[in-house]
Amino acid sequence: MDTTSIKAFGTEAADAALGEMGIQRRKVTDKDVEIDILYCGVCHSDLHFARNDWGFSVYPVVPGHEIVGKVKSVGEGVNKYKAGDIVAVGCLVDSCRSCSNCNNDLEQYCPEWVGTYGGHDKHLDLPTYGGYSESIVVDEHFVLSVPENLDLAGVAPVLCAGITTWSPLRHWNVGKDSKVAVVGLGGLGHMAIKLADALGAHVTLFSRSKNKIQDAKDLGADAVVISTNEDEMAAVQGQFDVIIDTVPYVHDVNPYIGTLNTNGTLVLVGYLGPLDPMLNTVPMIMGRKKVAGSLIGGIAETQELLDFCGKHNITSNIEVINIQDINTAYERMLKSDVHYRFVIDMASLKS
Amino acid sequence: MDTTSIKAFGTEAADAALGEMGIQRRKVTDKDVEIDILYCGVCHSDLHFARNDWGFSVYPVVPGHEIVGKVKSVGEGVNKYKAGDIVAVGCLVDSCRSCSNCNNDLEQYCPEWVGTYGGHDKHLDLPTYGGYSESIVVDEHFVLSVPENLDLAGVAPVLCAGITTWSPLRHWNVGKDSKVAVVGLGGLGHMAIKLADALGAHVTLFSRSKNKIQDAKDLGADAVVISTNEDEMAAVQGQFDVIIDTVPYVHDVNPYIGTLNTNGTLVLVGYLGPLDPMLNTVPMIMGRKKVAGSLIGGIAETQELLDFCGKHNITSNIEVINIQDINTAYERMLKSDVHYRFVIDMASLKS
Repeated sequence: MDTTSIKAFGTEAADAALGEMGIQRRKVTDKDVEIDILYCGVCHSDLHFARNDWGFSVYPVVPGHEIVGKVKSVGEGVNKYKAGDIVAVGCLVDSCRSCSNCNNDLEQYCPEWVGTYGGHDKHLDLPTYGGYSESIVVDEHFVLSVPENLDLAGVAPVLCAGITTWSPLRHWNVGKDSKVAVVGLGGLGHMAIKLADALGAHVTLFSRSKNKIQDAKDLGADAVVISTNEDEMAAVQGQFDVIIDTVPYVHDVNPYIGTLNTNGTLVLVGYLGPLDPMLNTVPMIMGRKKVAGSLIGGIAETQELLDFCGKHNITSNIEVINIQDINTAYERMLKSDVHYRFVIDMASLKS
Repeated sequence: MDTTSIKAFGTEAADAALGEMGIQRRKVTDKDVEIDILYCGVCHSDLHFARNDWGFSVYPVVPGHEIVGKVKSVGEGVNKYKAGDIVAVGCLVDSCRSCSNCNNDLEQYCPEWVGTYGGHDKHLDLPTYGGYSESIVVDEHFVLSVPENLDLAGVAPVLCAGITTWSPLRHWNVGKDSKVAVVGLGGLGHMAIKLADALGAHVTLFSRSKNKIQDAKDLGADAVVISTNEDEMAAVQGQFDVIIDTVPYVHDVNPYIGTLNTNGTLVLVGYLGPLDPMLNTVPMIMGRKKVAGSLIGGIAETQELLDFCGKHNITSNIEVINIQDINTAYERMLKSDVHYRFVIDMASLKS
């Protein structure tokens, strides 16, 4: 199959810094959209994948799945987009398109979903490469439309940090009568606060640090509960309909279960692994409480989110960097030294 | 307040056998129903409470919360029942009647719900005593009506084993398109199979023992999966909408999570304590799967179940015993040597 050589930024090994490299993109096929990438958000997963933290990276790795760009060309069968359109691509670029999950707009739970990077491009029989690159070629089904009024750099994190929190907020029917809590104030947490607030919910941030109180309120939180303060925790027992737990490392979720209302749900979106300390079933049984997981979101739901962001003028709080600064950005991200997401201005790749 | 002395069967200490004793019941007040007890089911909780396994028993303990009887007298304000009616009482005999849970027919999640035994009788300022007794006096709101066509001894376990499995089946919308699995085939498990089957679901039993295959099918199961058989477990990955886990002791729930469908829920109704081994969030996040707890059911829901049992002619599979055999029955129950519930013929207390 025909390919095009383009410039990208990636790594050849887990212990190597990211640097400029050449990669191959497939030529546009019937249903493909070719996108010049303008901005790409920097997600924790990018770093995990570049460094093979999960053990299944295939090198070279070109990260990036929070992509905003401009359509350069489209295949003959493409109806949704035309050259010049501002579009976005998130965490997935393909799926089987025929399983019950795909048929129910839950492509993210398709057993064969293809990640924007580290997946497998069926056309080329090659790994997929992400958005730290000049351009990308994606089937139109997986391309999203970006509302014109939004700041394009700030839109990028909506494609992962945003949808990862939006999907559970919507699935668990958060609205103006809801009481929502968010655990952790990072890339995901700050979007969870903005989105839950815009949905009309009463929003509380759980944080270990008093330093985050003003930041959380500026983002739209109605209250901040210091999770290490017993009195503050006691005061919110039985309060929350939904808790979005964005913490990406192992932590004790038991203290939060008590703060759920009857029928309440704690949704884990950040931490992958065993729940240590062990989850206690007693308060769950005594209040029909649930612990759930949730993964990004489907394509239709992502478009719904982008439209919602357009209507409510919501974007991420970001720090724009050049691609040449990505290795430093990773180090700062590990120290949570970013408010709240790095976004790469991909024009820097051309310089 | 006036009381009546009646005969009961209970224990004065955690290490003492159950024996005959006298207890006080309150005289019938305005909204009370006085019930002559005909049958009382024997629940695992009875044994835990008699032996103070949970550390909060107050002696004397008179167990029993699966009660079927005949109305002897009613208070002047009682509208629902009259002398001679066949009625039932389950696990709770009072609640605050004003919190949001009570207002939503979820009395079992009221912070002030009063257990049928081991609770606190506000009228007498005394502990409540259960159904191992001649009679009981209960506010009409907590008295259930028993369909005339049912075997009365077999109805008794519906009041706890039945409602404990019915409530999650209903809450998670089990119906004819559902795929349900049940973990454990005891008092709760056998009712879960019967009820899910009667709701029209496809029902699978997870069991460690091949000996239970025929029993499960006789009860209405469509399939039995031997949970220690890797091939059988692999064949049911991603299959179930709802799993009712009735196992009352600590066990590994992780193998069952993989057998849930996208959006599926594993509901713990038997085990109180920390989930050991630790619950792994990875398959939960990868399929928006949930782990939930559920406690008995509300009063309206229990009446709904009794009516459903009447319509479908469902009762428990039981072994009827005399009250004098209760200590032996406890020992047999500990060895799971009962198919599937002991029910005491309370006429034996008069002999």
